[in-house]
Amino acid sequence: MGDPAGVGPELCLRLLAAAAEGQFSECLPVVFGSVAVLQRVAGRLGLPCRFPPVADPAAATTAAIYDVCDDSLAAIQPGRVSPAGGEAAFRCCTTAIAAALAGTVDGIVTAPLNKEALHAAGHDYPGHTELFAERLAADRSCMMQYADDIACSFVTTHVGYAEVPGLLTTTRIGEVLDLTDAALRRIRGRAPRLLVCGLNPHAGEHGLFGKGEEERLISPAVAAAVARGIDATGPVPGDTAFTPQARQRYDAVVCMYHDQGHIPVKMIAFDRAVNITLGLPVPRTSVDHGTAFDIAWQGVADPGSLFAAVRLAAKLARFDVAASRPTANTSHS
Amino acid sequence: MGDPAGVGPELCLRLLAAAAEGQFSECLPVVFGSVAVLQRVAGRLGLPCRFPPVADPAAATTAAIYDVCDDSLAAIQPGRVSPAGGEAAFRCCTTAIAAALAGTVDGIVTAPLNKEALHAAGHDYPGHTELFAERLAADRSCMMQYADDIACSFVTTHVGYAEVPGLLTTTRIGEVLDLTDAALRRIRGRAPRLLVCGLNPHAGEHGLFGKGEEERLISPAVAAAVARGIDATGPVPGDTAFTPQARQRYDAVVCMYHDQGHIPVKMIAFDRAVNITLGLPVPRTSVDHGTAFDIAWQGVADPGSLFAAVRLAAKLARFDVAASRPTANTSHS
Repeated sequence: MGDPAGVGPELCLRLLAAAAEGQFSECLPVVFGSVAVLQRVAGRLGLPCRFPPVADPAAATTAAIYDVCDDSLAAIQPGRVSPAGGEAAFRCCTTAIAAALAGTVDGIVTAPLNKEALHAAGHDYPGHTELFAERLAADRSCMMQYADDIACSFVTTHVGYAEVPGLLTTTRIGEVLDLTDAALRRIRGRAPRLLVCGLNPHAGEHGLFGKGEEERLISPAVAAAVARGIDATGPVPGDTAFTPQARQRYDAVVCMYHDQGHIPVKMIAFDRAVNITLGLPVPRTSVDHGTAFDIAWQGVADPGSLFAAVRLAAKLARFDVAASRPTANTSHS
Repeated sequence: MGDPAGVGPELCLRLLAAAAEGQFSECLPVVFGSVAVLQRVAGRLGLPCRFPPVADPAAATTAAIYDVCDDSLAAIQPGRVSPAGGEAAFRCCTTAIAAALAGTVDGIVTAPLNKEALHAAGHDYPGHTELFAERLAADRSCMMQYADDIACSFVTTHVGYAEVPGLLTTTRIGEVLDLTDAALRRIRGRAPRLLVCGLNPHAGEHGLFGKGEEERLISPAVAAAVARGIDATGPVPGDTAFTPQARQRYDAVVCMYHDQGHIPVKMIAFDRAVNITLGLPVPRTSVDHGTAFDIAWQGVADPGSLFAAVRLAAKLARFDVAASRPTANTSHS
């Protein structure tokens, strides 16, 4: 459900209503959230909230709500940062992670949390990605933003601009290349073509700009990935990686820092891109937008990104099931 | 003409041919370059090269070539970095600057140079912009990339990624806001709406990422610009500044670093954007692409960006003339 003061609750209500209408036949959505908040938001917006609270997510037979919150949310107001809101978003995540580890859910989709609220509640994670990586004991993970027509994975994400160069290593770039290649093979059903960005303007222009990050760190990682059988090209200048021609030629772009990939993804696929954490033992996807406190509880938030995130998680989860249980008919993966 | 080993010569030949056909009635293009190289390229590509070399650009009455090079270009090969090529590109620029200062040309349009070749020739400028700023004694200048549907100006440009934070000051950001506002007023004929990007992911998200560059440096510059009467908004996250909605709402985006603006400009207006140096005493525009050594002298380079650069320079120059000679009829500025 994400932060209760954001757009998460109304998006979850839209999802449950769409699922009840049969729009999500590929999965059975169970909202980990607060029944009280969902009912308040539904009442305010005139949305239906006739979805059964379940005591155990594994027991759900229709789209349902699993209450993971307590009375501390009674004072929640839309658009306000609060420790209670941060704690609720944290509990939604951690109970979903526990359910995934127990095998009672097949994948996790996260609605947006507010990082200030999360920190105010005493949980010092930079974002969802790091929380999931820690709790799911992933030793190698990274963020990916995915839409059918543009996909980016990230060597660094939620760190200050100035911290990025110190976090680039050949090992880390190689990890992200491996994770991106593996994810795209599953989504596309074939070996993907990956493009790798440089860090500096013009990818350093042969050492004229920057400290040789391209030659010292990125090129060796690309060469090693190619030697492992990955179809990777680069480093190329960031500003040539997303031209219409390049987007047709490559399946995904490996980016060195947050805005290098988020700028083009939000331009091309603003309400369609799905955030995926790669490298986890269960599929985890997320909406591409924030809590949107300025329009929370007003009924105008677009559920497109959440719906796309649910569909991609269901696809990845279904693929997991198929991969673990080979049958005679595997042609329609 | 730019670096003779790049696509500059053939693009200049295309321009001269188009001007001879009457496509550039708003100006009289004079190519500052090498007659020998232009003739070699024309011969190789089967293009016409019947444009008179002139001894003085001010004496040109039709589209013409002004020879500023010497015999050192006889060994030039397409696609090869050489000191002679860098020196030729440098001479094209410096003679054009001298002509502009003497009043014999009304504006300058630059074809691409190769920075390695420029440096190999002993001229340690990061790029055109800095060379022009120095020679034209501009104490405040900046780069802008302009197309009718997307325009970005830059607080920093051709420096390494890691150097950017140290170059951001409230004074510099204020300069770029002033220069951008002044240029857009001339191009649009009205007060423009400017959007200012942050540096860190999510514009720092209230101090969670980065070193408070948004609060310490950028916000004060925006507030001061607003107090001076500029319609400026920000800092906003870089990845929200170029969404379709934002592009409709703002006339230009002030970017903190090269790729923040070059990625979206090359996505939206790959072969149409014009590079402008703001703050110079004469209009100076440039193509939006590089020397393209890989396709040089093959006749396949698209002259669209050069043609757009010539048209925008002519427009800015004509506006200069109109502004310096007020007449009874000033309504069609």
